[in-house]
Amino acid sequence: VESGVDPRDRGLQYGDGVFRTLRVVAGRPRWWRAQLAKLEEDCRRLRIDCPPESLWRADLAALGRIGDGVLKLLVTRGDGPRGYRPPQGALPRRILIYRAGLPPAWDTANGIVARVCDLRLGRQPLLAGIKHLARLENVLASAEWAAPEIAEGLLLDDEERVISGVMSNLLIWRGARLATPRLHRCGVAGVTRALLMRLARADGIEVCEDDMTLDEILSADEVMLCNSVMGLARVARLGERTWPAPLISTRLAAALETFDA
Amino acid sequence: VESGVDPRDRGLQYGDGVFRTLRVVAGRPRWWRAQLAKLEEDCRRLRIDCPPESLWRADLAALGRIGDGVLKLLVTRGDGPRGYRPPQGALPRRILIYRAGLPPAWDTANGIVARVCDLRLGRQPLLAGIKHLARLENVLASAEWAAPEIAEGLLLDDEERVISGVMSNLLIWRGARLATPRLHRCGVAGVTRALLMRLARADGIEVCEDDMTLDEILSADEVMLCNSVMGLARVARLGERTWPAPLISTRLAAALETFDA
Repeated sequence: VESGVDPRDRGLQYGDGVFRTLRVVAGRPRWWRAQLAKLEEDCRRLRIDCPPESLWRADLAALGRIGDGVLKLLVTRGDGPRGYRPPQGALPRRILIYRAGLPPAWDTANGIVARVCDLRLGRQPLLAGIKHLARLENVLASAEWAAPEIAEGLLLDDEERVISGVMSNLLIWRGARLATPRLHRCGVAGVTRALLMRLARADGIEVCEDDMTLDEILSADEVMLCNSVMGLARVARLGERTWPAPLISTRLAAALETFDA
Repeated sequence: VESGVDPRDRGLQYGDGVFRTLRVVAGRPRWWRAQLAKLEEDCRRLRIDCPPESLWRADLAALGRIGDGVLKLLVTRGDGPRGYRPPQGALPRRILIYRAGLPPAWDTANGIVARVCDLRLGRQPLLAGIKHLARLENVLASAEWAAPEIAEGLLLDDEERVISGVMSNLLIWRGARLATPRLHRCGVAGVTRALLMRLARADGIEVCEDDMTLDEILSADEVMLCNSVMGLARVARLGERTWPAPLISTRLAAALETFDA
């Protein structure tokens, strides 16, 4: 399904579509059901008809034998006449991209180094939470640094709330509670974040979604970042602040890695 | 140049690119120099190498004989490896789409009917003014109404400033001055808007860019919308407010239509 896309596709023209990035291990896309459910939810919010699982399955089968890699599923609203307005009866386009090989994993135990981005996210409640194709803020933020030792940048919104990493979501451990930023103004409500909240609750851990400032991150007992490809990593350093040893992250990472759905 | 686009193109993946929409009259793209200058400026802001005019000219020539229509020029950052970060040495992709036939023109003299959109634009100074490919807000806003008598919707930002139309820019005439919203927080600083400001100034009219509320729009002597394809039209009705006759719009529209560059 990697042939050329019609240049009139609204995904290209306007960012009018959604996507998912999945880790594939031994030919098996991880957390398939949860990923597809999120794809469907995001499509519903944009009023795009999400292709059914059977079509994705057929696309996957057409790839032939795959091993370890990264799979990206995109759904666009399809082609349309000129103009922003979504056309009646547009036929959504699905695009499946597989790249063999996994990126170097985050060092879960030793932790990663993060920085705070200069860019401040604009707020758009109608798009918040959706992993849509209009991701230029993430592109600009990721271009802010080049140092290879920095694994991720933190994004704040234009009212100085911490929202997420550029390509990951954020969780903090503080006073024996797990907290993660609310994502109803901006940010992407990712599958790994949702899974971690669910697994933590099932493990008897109190979990909450809340607004948080950078000071609250810096004073947290432990800070963690997560995404579907990289899994969970604790932050070992953020600017001048260091966290020398894991607290809850080891347990959460283990629960996440053994989860299967 | 309408063949298939690589699905790994960053324009499709992230909205990582810019575009221009031009009116073509008798085979000639209108305001070509101004359009190309704006394309270059937008590319520069996103640090994309804009293709030189010679390549666009060659693409145009390859279209063969064209008449009246709409031409769209897109520049994306090109293909890249996985991830938001702009790759070093990416080769920008240019896409040229021509559609024969012009949309029904706005009724400049009688004016058009507009409404106020419910969606509020998020603010992102780093992207403000740029006609980039991440236009989901415009897509959502344009889906708010279906009534064919409504030609355009006005967009406010999340602090209730009036910014623009969904596909056009806004000018008001008030106390013998022309004013247009400032576009440093959000919105697209279009070519037609810039031309109109320039032509008005050359005509001895005082022109300013300013923040404006909806009340200031409603109490204006005349309200106008403009874009490169539709030209300039006065607003005859916005909600309950009507403006019965043109004031400055006729003069501005005439200056615009005779401008050649």
